[in-house]
Amino acid sequence: MRILGLDPSLSSTGWGIIEVEGNKMKYVADGFIKTDPKMPIYQRLAAIHNELAKIIETYKPVEAAIEQVFLNDNPSSTIKLSMARGVVILAPALKDIPVVEYEPNKIKKAVVGVGKAEKQQVETMVKILLPGCKPKNNDSSDALAIAIAHFNYRGARY
Amino acid sequence: MRILGLDPSLSSTGWGIIEVEGNKMKYVADGFIKTDPKMPIYQRLAAIHNELAKIIETYKPVEAAIEQVFLNDNPSSTIKLSMARGVVILAPALKDIPVVEYEPNKIKKAVVGVGKAEKQQVETMVKILLPGCKPKNNDSSDALAIAIAHFNYRGARY
Repeated sequence: MRILGLDPSLSSTGWGIIEVEGNKMKYVADGFIKTDPKMPIYQRLAAIHNELAKIIETYKPVEAAIEQVFLNDNPSSTIKLSMARGVVILAPALKDIPVVEYEPNKIKKAVVGVGKAEKQQVETMVKILLPGCKPKNNDSSDALAIAIAHFNYRGARY
Repeated sequence: MRILGLDPSLSSTGWGIIEVEGNKMKYVADGFIKTDPKMPIYQRLAAIHNELAKIIETYKPVEAAIEQVFLNDNPSSTIKLSMARGVVILAPALKDIPVVEYEPNKIKKAVVGVGKAEKQQVETMVKILLPGCKPKNNDSSDALAIAIAHFNYRGARY
């Protein structure tokens, strides 16, 4: 079965798909959805949704995972991120694909072994855990890390 | 032509439709979409989207308006509200219906005449401006107020 990891933002939403079987996993695909900052927000949200719906249609994941969001220093950024996040969660939800949320440090702990890892350490571990995978950018690397974390934690939950 | 006013939240999203022709407007419909707090967020977001998509299909608005969101005292509420807001904006956006955002005090000013009106004053004016309308609840009354404000402001914008 396939797991979809999601790292949303209004400007660039990362996504990553892994295939899991028993206690093994392998890389399937990853990428990012960029939106034009000159477009009105409603069109950017529609662009994110339409692109993600195509990815789900293509790769047919059966579970999805996403990082929990916390308030950052810029309230306007938090609001925009949360709006994008709602739209990103909706795409799998409309296909009855459950979306599980994880705290950022739980994701890092699952992938790197410690909760306070740097972005670069996460990417290095993603490449080691998914041989042959060269993440397209930081966002898709984070999305793959979220999918890996879900694979690690879901055993205990199902 | 019809305007859709939207007052989003994860627990209860208000909506209101008005018909405008020249400088006249009349009430068409209003309501609210409640979601079950016991359901996971991804299912609540899907419920909001599906219900709103049906309302758009039924009443065929050509423009939509929504209140701008600001950070409130509870960061977790702001994040949930913003997620619902993203999903609520998406429904018209997927039908190429433009969604315009207004600051809360601009909405009150357009409907009541002052920027710092109480909820009750807004509802009273909604009933006066839309004869025959009895808003279903506070959320749908606010949504109708947002539609009225858009009707007042759009003249200058188009």
